[in-house]
Amino acid sequence: MALLVEKTSSGREYKVKDMSQADFGRLELELAEVDMPGLMACRTEFGPSQPFKGARITGSLLMTIQTAVLIETLTALGAEVRWCSCNIFSTQDHAAAAIARDSAAVFAWKGETLQEYWWCTERALDWGPGGGPDLIVDDGGDATLLIHEGVKAEEEYEKNGTLPDPSSTDNAEFQIVLTIIRDGLKVDPTKYRKMKERLVGVSEETTTGVKRLYQMQASGALLFPAINVNDSVTKSKFDNLYGCRHSLPDGLMRATDVMIAGKVAFVAGYGDVGKGCAAALKQAGARVIVSEIDPICALQPQWKGLQVLPLE
Amino acid sequence: MALLVEKTSSGREYKVKDMSQADFGRLELELAEVDMPGLMACRTEFGPSQPFKGARITGSLLMTIQTAVLIETLTALGAEVRWCSCNIFSTQDHAAAAIARDSAAVFAWKGETLQEYWWCTERALDWGPGGGPDLIVDDGGDATLLIHEGVKAEEEYEKNGTLPDPSSTDNAEFQIVLTIIRDGLKVDPTKYRKMKERLVGVSEETTTGVKRLYQMQASGALLFPAINVNDSVTKSKFDNLYGCRHSLPDGLMRATDVMIAGKVAFVAGYGDVGKGCAAALKQAGARVIVSEIDPICALQPQWKGLQVLPLE
Amino acid sequence: MALLVEKTSSGREYKVKDMSQADFGRLELELAEVDMPGLMACRTEFGPSQPFKGARITGSLLMTIQTAVLIETLTALGAEVRWCSCNIFSTQDHAAAAIARDSAAVFAWKGETLQEYWWCTERALDWGPGGGPDLIVDDGGDATLLIHEGVKAEEEYEKNGTLPDPSSTDNAEFQIVLTIIRDGLKVDPTKYRKMKERLVGVSEETTTGVKRLYQMQASGALLFPAINVNDSVTKSKFDNLYGCRHSLPDGLMRATDVMIAGKVAFVAGYGDVGKGCAAALKQAGARVIVSEIDPICALQPQWKGLQVLPLE
Amino acid sequence: MALLVEKTSSGREYKVKDMSQADFGRLELELAEVDMPGLMACRTEFGPSQPFKGARITGSLLMTIQTAVLIETLTALGAEVRWCSCNIFSTQDHAAAAIARDSAAVFAWKGETLQEYWWCTERALDWGPGGGPDLIVDDGGDATLLIHEGVKAEEEYEKNGTLPDPSSTDNAEFQIVLTIIRDGLKVDPTKYRKMKERLVGVSEETTTGVKRLYQMQASGALLFPAINVNDSVTKSKFDNLYGCRHSLPDGLMRATDVMIAGKVAFVAGYGDVGKGCAAALKQAGARVIVSEIDPICALQPQWKGLQVLPLE
Repeated sequence: MALLVEKTSSGREYKVKDMSQADFGRLELELAEVDMPGLMACRTEFGPSQPFKGARITGSLLMTIQTAVLIETLTALGAEVRWCSCNIFSTQDHAAAAIARDSAAVFAWKGETLQEYWWCTERALDWGPGGGPDLIVDDGGDATLLIHEGVKAEEEYEKNGTLPDPSSTDNAEFQIVLTIIRDGLKVDPTKYRKMKERLVGVSEETTTGVKRLYQMQASGALLFPAINVNDSVTKSKFDNLYGCRHSLPDGLMRATDVMIAGKVAFVAGYGDVGKGCAAALKQAGARVIVSEIDPICALQPQWKGLQVLPLE
Repeated sequence: MALLVEKTSSGREYKVKDMSQADFGRLELELAEVDMPGLMACRTEFGPSQPFKGARITGSLLMTIQTAVLIETLTALGAEVRWCSCNIFSTQDHAAAAIARDSAAVFAWKGETLQEYWWCTERALDWGPGGGPDLIVDDGGDATLLIHEGVKAEEEYEKNGTLPDPSSTDNAEFQIVLTIIRDGLKVDPTKYRKMKERLVGVSEETTTGVKRLYQMQASGALLFPAINVNDSVTKSKFDNLYGCRHSLPDGLMRATDVMIAGKVAFVAGYGDVGKGCAAALKQAGARVIVSEIDPICALQPQWKGLQVLPLE
Repeated sequence: MALLVEKTSSGREYKVKDMSQADFGRLELELAEVDMPGLMACRTEFGPSQPFKGARITGSLLMTIQTAVLIETLTALGAEVRWCSCNIFSTQDHAAAAIARDSAAVFAWKGETLQEYWWCTERALDWGPGGGPDLIVDDGGDATLLIHEGVKAEEEYEKNGTLPDPSSTDNAEFQIVLTIIRDGLKVDPTKYRKMKERLVGVSEETTTGVKRLYQMQASGALLFPAINVNDSVTKSKFDNLYGCRHSLPDGLMRATDVMIAGKVAFVAGYGDVGKGCAAALKQAGARVIVSEIDPICALQPQWKGLQVLPLE
Repeated sequence: MALLVEKTSSGREYKVKDMSQADFGRLELELAEVDMPGLMACRTEFGPSQPFKGARITGSLLMTIQTAVLIETLTALGAEVRWCSCNIFSTQDHAAAAIARDSAAVFAWKGETLQEYWWCTERALDWGPGGGPDLIVDDGGDATLLIHEGVKAEEEYEKNGTLPDPSSTDNAEFQIVLTIIRDGLKVDPTKYRKMKERLVGVSEETTTGVKRLYQMQASGALLFPAINVNDSVTKSKFDNLYGCRHSLPDGLMRATDVMIAGKVAFVAGYGDVGKGCAAALKQAGARVIVSEIDPICALQPQWKGLQVLPLE
């Protein structure tokens, strides 16, 4: 796709796959709202007082129908929102279309290239001359990473005029990050520091991102406050277990159109995610074999009637 | 046990293991009555009109709590009842005690010898000089068998004075049957024919017994009408499937005091009984392997996530 | 869509949604082949002898990946194949694209209008001047219906010059059928009779279609032999039960993107389809309520722990 | 039962219900040994070195078949053992008989009165003139309680000649405890202090007992070291969850002889015990309703398809 920002008739920026899917997205949004009473209660309780009035919120988190309900809750509470996905595959195009048309600036589509992915992330952070967002809703820590790398590069540049060198790394994705920062530096050498100044903090909802944050905190590199959403009980005990129990067969069926019943399935590890996956596969009629490194934990699948085998 | 008939204070005959368990039996009878609304509705609907008034009913059917509810339904409708078990192990002694004390003549205990078993059967059929029962509730066909063999022996004896010869067979159980008939012949050489005359018919509830009946019907040997209860849908689709699903783990747990979870269980055959057994073992946390000779039927356990293997 | 037949570079006719999905279709076809060992064994065993050499086969059956494996088995055995869907929604566009590109004439896409649907059916039956197909694989009986109505109209027209009158019926779909036949009559007044002459027979795989066929047989209206595939054990005991157990949650998840766990689900009827649906919903974590008109059958869900309620 | 200690031919003390059940107990012991590989491995690994040589171990823990395997593991490692149950109902009489006959001093039967229960506990602690046990295996803390109360009474008695007064409490069970201590004081006013001196420590495996111990530790009243076995992962994550999943239906079936399928069951609380109970009842075909005070935890049964209702 040509990486050009488009605008709605009301002037809001976006870049999505297919705006004609907005109606379908809206339909599923309405279904999802019934399913998310917590967010809907927030709208009812806090909508009138507009606690987010004037707040700029950037999200880097899978642009799905459920996230769309979150976004519209934020806007219902007064916020302005810009959004990108946290993964090149995790956008639902009809969700992105509905939000882009109706509620917030979205830069996301299913099947982005890495180049496109980081362009989208940059767009979601780009609130114009007055600095960046007040809050970041991060998933995996990429928005947080971009700001930290940007600030580091700006300070280096200010100190001795050095620009980031994409060829200094073998990591293809990090080359893209450095290129984006380098090109930005030429335009505005204080952009990321202005972001940092304005930013109140970030919430992070994935193990990967949380680990990165704790490391940065330990080394003193963390530039702003961060909230660990990942370890809340509603995440670890529900998303991991019941979320996977739902989404694993969903994903397998959409991706393969193959019957799960009668297959032999192998699940590596029997933590909450493994428990959810094994339960889903067993329920769909697969014969499930589990491998688990902890000998005590390995008794659990056995006592549920699953075969437990070493990886060898 | 000494094979002597005992009598309650009201003069009703019985022979059970331990009359002191009658209270415990009554307690469970009251629980079971809640669970058997069909029989209880019969008591309400037909009790007042006493349709079984004057009827003599002999049962040869596992003397359990549930059977006890049946017996007391028969007596509530006016019948006189004499009962024995259809199997040397299938009596619940507290059920037998409660019925013997309160409702009907019972000859049954858990762990009979074969000698004791047939003595009990004879007692249940023994209604005194006036002939036998009007109806038989049979399970496995042993009461029916005894009458047929008795009539055959009486006719032979009348014809040429021959007595049944227990040594004519290698089958230990059939030797006992012939001995009983032989000894009875000396006392009353028309006893079983009088029974046959009075008998209106038999109901039979097991595959084994039903097969025997169809064979006797085909060969013209069947002496009285018989009702096939075994093939009613409430038997085959419920007793076989859900009954086994309940009673298999019940039996395993009582007999072994061993945990089922985590074990590998093997189920031979995947008809209704096999389905019930496999479901029960799977639910209790066993890993279940099934063998099934019909290749189409063998797909069913596989599509339920069970391992299917040949017996080899 | 403009109802124009397109042609592949090799000259084979088709009309599908998006030929660019052919590669994706081929990928899933390869997965499905692993899952359909019966068809694949047919290719191995009968491919070399080409038993369908020269045979023309028309299918009117959901144009999915699994049907695609069937089509390519027919062509592997020597047949020429023309295909349409039996339902306006039941085409997988990537399956249609792969078959259209590689193997057979396909006229099917997801979301046809009724007008488009019958145009597709007509195309699948249109083998050119030499008459119609040798065999029909029918699902719901629409191809069979079209031929029967066509023959009837031709005979009427020959007898007294009367053309079918679409306005003679209130049924919108039947108006379309009559229009197609009327317009065809003007071009070739013996088209459907030529089809009937050539046709060896039809196989029918759905209850609806089978019922129609038995009615036509009873009234003497059936013009050619028909095979009832619907009542084979692999259909009723597998497709209905395990097929629904798979496809119900699949469909719900694709259509709504809503979590099934925690919902209250209602299943009307507890035959094989109802059993499969109830099992699937229960396993996905829904609380399932069942309604069943037969009081004996209604005990089954209750004994599986489901709530049974009257429809009221 | 007359509270008289009996002796085996080898002179070991015991009091059990029915010594003739010892063979049946031995049979089930052999089954259980297969199921308890950890204990059996201890016998193999540590048996030869006899680490418990000369050690006296008193157990107050349900005298079941599984406990019997533990007892015989202790004796295999060199210990002398005296045992009582921790609950008036929790003895399996065949297990008690087998151990009494073959391995250790047992004072336990199913259906003890409270009077009998504490007499048994006293017997298990009575190692003769040379003081008490070296180790106590406690379950519920009754053996620990008796020693603590005994020591307290002895000190009081030494100080001012006061004997414990059973009428000082309304608690019927504690009256029995005080009576036992009072009567013992007259015979040997240092018995419990001698026990305390010899005792190395106690292991405690139940929440109730553990709580008592922590309270005594906090108040400085705890007289000897104690190990909290209750909170080990193999207890809380296995015994509570899978143990209850096994033993709840086992107990219900033995106690009521009633079918679980089709019933409505109510589970109060959805911790590990509640999870195990709800799973067992659901699997047995009951419709399960759960009540849970924590709103987050209450989502878990709902997402497993169970009905969640307030207690009201």
